[in-house]
Amino acid sequence: MFENNERTDLDKLGEFGLIDHLTKNIQLHDKTTVKGVGDDAAVLDFSGRRTLVSTDLLLEGIHFDLAYTPLKHLGYKSIQVNLSDIYAMNGEASQVTVSIGISSKFPLEAVEELYSGMLLACDRYKIDLIGGDTSASKQGLIISVTSIGHAKEEDICYRNGAQENDLLCVSGDLGAAYVGLQLLEREKLVFLENPNIQPDLEGKDYIVERQLKPDARVDVINLLKEMKIKPTSMIDVSDGLASEVLHLCKNSDKGCVVYEEKIPIDPMTYDTAREFNLDPTVCALSGGEDYELLFTVKQSDYDKIKNSPDITIIGHITESSAGTHLVSKSGNVHQLKAQGWNAFKN
Amino acid sequence: MFENNERTDLDKLGEFGLIDHLTKNIQLHDKTTVKGVGDDAAVLDFSGRRTLVSTDLLLEGIHFDLAYTPLKHLGYKSIQVNLSDIYAMNGEASQVTVSIGISSKFPLEAVEELYSGMLLACDRYKIDLIGGDTSASKQGLIISVTSIGHAKEEDICYRNGAQENDLLCVSGDLGAAYVGLQLLEREKLVFLENPNIQPDLEGKDYIVERQLKPDARVDVINLLKEMKIKPTSMIDVSDGLASEVLHLCKNSDKGCVVYEEKIPIDPMTYDTAREFNLDPTVCALSGGEDYELLFTVKQSDYDKIKNSPDITIIGHITESSAGTHLVSKSGNVHQLKAQGWNAFKN
Repeated sequence: MFENNERTDLDKLGEFGLIDHLTKNIQLHDKTTVKGVGDDAAVLDFSGRRTLVSTDLLLEGIHFDLAYTPLKHLGYKSIQVNLSDIYAMNGEASQVTVSIGISSKFPLEAVEELYSGMLLACDRYKIDLIGGDTSASKQGLIISVTSIGHAKEEDICYRNGAQENDLLCVSGDLGAAYVGLQLLEREKLVFLENPNIQPDLEGKDYIVERQLKPDARVDVINLLKEMKIKPTSMIDVSDGLASEVLHLCKNSDKGCVVYEEKIPIDPMTYDTAREFNLDPTVCALSGGEDYELLFTVKQSDYDKIKNSPDITIIGHITESSAGTHLVSKSGNVHQLKAQGWNAFKN
Repeated sequence: MFENNERTDLDKLGEFGLIDHLTKNIQLHDKTTVKGVGDDAAVLDFSGRRTLVSTDLLLEGIHFDLAYTPLKHLGYKSIQVNLSDIYAMNGEASQVTVSIGISSKFPLEAVEELYSGMLLACDRYKIDLIGGDTSASKQGLIISVTSIGHAKEEDICYRNGAQENDLLCVSGDLGAAYVGLQLLEREKLVFLENPNIQPDLEGKDYIVERQLKPDARVDVINLLKEMKIKPTSMIDVSDGLASEVLHLCKNSDKGCVVYEEKIPIDPMTYDTAREFNLDPTVCALSGGEDYELLFTVKQSDYDKIKNSPDITIIGHITESSAGTHLVSKSGNVHQLKAQGWNAFKN
């Protein structure tokens, strides 16, 4: 059916390469579009307040494994990861649409479990589920969520606003979701070898929950408002810290210095990474799925945030020509690299 | 993983049954939500103008067959079917988000074909593609589109506004997309039996295009505005005429009479249906994918539309207790039944 002798493999491009390639020729037509492709959410001007829209696709076998993912958790997570994008714009999330493709072999009760997790997330965050689509799927479970929010134009934090000498900050801690995933994958293998052995997740609740049931950081957005801080740029950490730092720097045309010793890592994440012979810093830099907020603030805001237990200053913004660097605990300077997560590579 | 002894089969519920079941407990939280689940698009109040949002999921093997669907057409169609929902609210479509799940075995050029069809649709309709998501898919091709539009509250046409004695109208003609599909399916079988035989679609352009490359009827929306007609209720014909008429009647708590002889069917649709030993009226009533607009207008608008070549009056609205009926060409009265399209049944 497809007659074309050219062939470029998707796995060479990677997800970001593919997006860049596909979107470079997009022309905007409508005067209500303030910002289209290229940030966490699209920004539309519907008189007075901006409307924010963001969308994510979650696919079985790619983004989740039903062998160890309870459907209710999966529903909850699918909403949270999407809301996270609205908060990363410093917006108020207000609605979601949810489309689901499922095998007709699933019993209704399974779909209800999934949906109950979605509604729980909506309820906790006071979000309206306003529409969607359901279909049979001949393949695996498919979840597509679109979230909608709003903000005053002057409150919106884009990725491109970081200025030289701004402080680079991150909420919460990093790497836990990735290490939690390693644990779940190990227990799955154990179970497949001997179904009589129960999974050993004893005492690992925190990192397992970070993987299975993350919470979007609306509390951090509210905290920043209380502290009267407007970040100069912001993004959520879905693909790993390194990837997100580089997004901010690229979009703002700036460089940065990140200090390894400042990267917040929970002790359980640290110890469990070590059990797996993983470098905890690499887990934080490249693991992904933390759904924390990474943002830059003016130096003059330093006094306001220095004692906040929820926010860590991990570095600062430099001029573009200075490059993007990581200073290791031993004082060595490395180029910051985004391995990130590439769904097109196996 | 799923421990529950209850089991309700999805195929017994059907798509609408599943949606009803899943959405009946949804609570709305946000004052910006004017209308959530239950119409063609959600309606949000973002000061001044309403924001309209609608979403669709298109899955390989369920909604399309790549054996006879050119990717560019598929991209075009995936946008059009979504815009159709915004127009069915009497809104102006302004943006779409597009998420795609694809096998990494697809070459980039194939994705480009798909995307070029999407951008062509956007360009023709002056729509902005404002975001989305792409992912590898281990299964088939997955397309999720969310469309966004806007309208003044007083212009919006909901499904629930039909009044007794209103005229029931439909744009264009019906059944062509379904008959076109039968033709494509037949030629696929011929090809599978003998790959040397070229598909015989000679002279069937119209019905094949209606299946592969439908156009959302923004022209009809503009025509109604020019004629200074605001429909009392409206829906787009995606699941077959009967299903949509019943949606309007149910939502408006009214009955109706539809006259078989008035249902607009193109001669090519009629003749080709006959070739397949199909009843052309059944194709129009239950075939689906026409993406025409079905709407009700006040009797006082009769003179304005009676000579419009694009609009056909097919019946009228009655009180609820009178039921929903089809008067056959021979004068017999039948209960109007929606077989519609049920993705959960094979």
